[in-house]
Amino acid sequence: MYPGSFKNLIESFKFFPGIGEKTAERMAFSTMNLEDTQIQFFIKSLQEVKEQIHPCKICNSLTDQEICPICNSTLRQDILCVVEDAKVVFLFEKLGMFKGKYHVLSGLISPIDGVNPEDIGLEKLIDRIKNENFKEIILAFKPSIEGEVTALYIKKILEELDIEITRLASGVPIGADMEYVDALTLERALFDRKKIE
Amino acid sequence: MYPGSFKNLIESFKFFPGIGEKTAERMAFSTMNLEDTQIQFFIKSLQEVKEQIHPCKICNSLTDQEICPICNSTLRQDILCVVEDAKVVFLFEKLGMFKGKYHVLSGLISPIDGVNPEDIGLEKLIDRIKNENFKEIILAFKPSIEGEVTALYIKKILEELDIEITRLASGVPIGADMEYVDALTLERALFDRKKIE
Repeated sequence: MYPGSFKNLIESFKFFPGIGEKTAERMAFSTMNLEDTQIQFFIKSLQEVKEQIHPCKICNSLTDQEICPICNSTLRQDILCVVEDAKVVFLFEKLGMFKGKYHVLSGLISPIDGVNPEDIGLEKLIDRIKNENFKEIILAFKPSIEGEVTALYIKKILEELDIEITRLASGVPIGADMEYVDALTLERALFDRKKIE
Repeated sequence: MYPGSFKNLIESFKFFPGIGEKTAERMAFSTMNLEDTQIQFFIKSLQEVKEQIHPCKICNSLTDQEICPICNSTLRQDILCVVEDAKVVFLFEKLGMFKGKYHVLSGLISPIDGVNPEDIGLEKLIDRIKNENFKEIILAFKPSIEGEVTALYIKKILEELDIEITRLASGVPIGADMEYVDALTLERALFDRKKIE
């Protein structure tokens, strides 16, 4: 019913997770209102991203160089923040409060989804930790069963090394109303309670 | 902070209305997970849509031919459905319950946004109505001030012609709880009440 190439564009938008039929249609119609220069810029960006962007050889974060600027920097502290996704690296960098280095896994261990320890690139992480001289490893996974399992698994492997392993604090989000905080989070907040100094 | 072409891709997604920084970032990261063939298909669709899709010479709906299949059809009834956007044509066609023809305006009259009668292509519509032989003109605009103003304006111009002009029914949506229906809609539903036959 839609003209052929228009239908194809709708299908293309549906490649993206979270984009369903309606949103894809809306975006395809919006495309008709874009300037030629915008379409050309869009096409060029898609081409260049696919050609130039790849995982950093050291930390797996996204970069257009062989080794990303963070791994290349001599100003970074000897603290390694392990994350489940390159997205988290850029999120942390945007906040700008972490001055160490990163290591990006390919997700979290999730046996129920068929994701086993050997699937998320742990070997490369362990090798790196053994070869570089980190004072601390922060396991910055999301608070979830998968996050816990992955953190415990890594902690067990690294036990033999004399290195501090930490996780992010979990608890009541700043500004949240207590009544809207879920039970598991409240339980964790209680368990992780801090002494008021 | 993001690599150059990755940043450009984020900016490209932000060209689309309703896509903000966060969604654009999420889509750019998702792009990294697409197959090469998907990216190529996406790029080809964007190029072809821009090259091939344009307004139908007669009705302004989107088509990759000079005249769209609906305008070209001899099976369509002599009823003209006037809409504010090509999107509505495809929505109606998907539902498949309208068998007449369409005419797409460039939006609705909205003096507050600086959109005056001469900006929405009314001249072409009036010419078409005068030259073709329609039994009825349905003004299928959204129920809003702009929709009302545009409908009244068109009705006034067509007054001299002996042609039936109708609008879509407004009222309580099927399945809606009365308490969640807004006051204007209820008022309209009451005003447009139908005799139970």
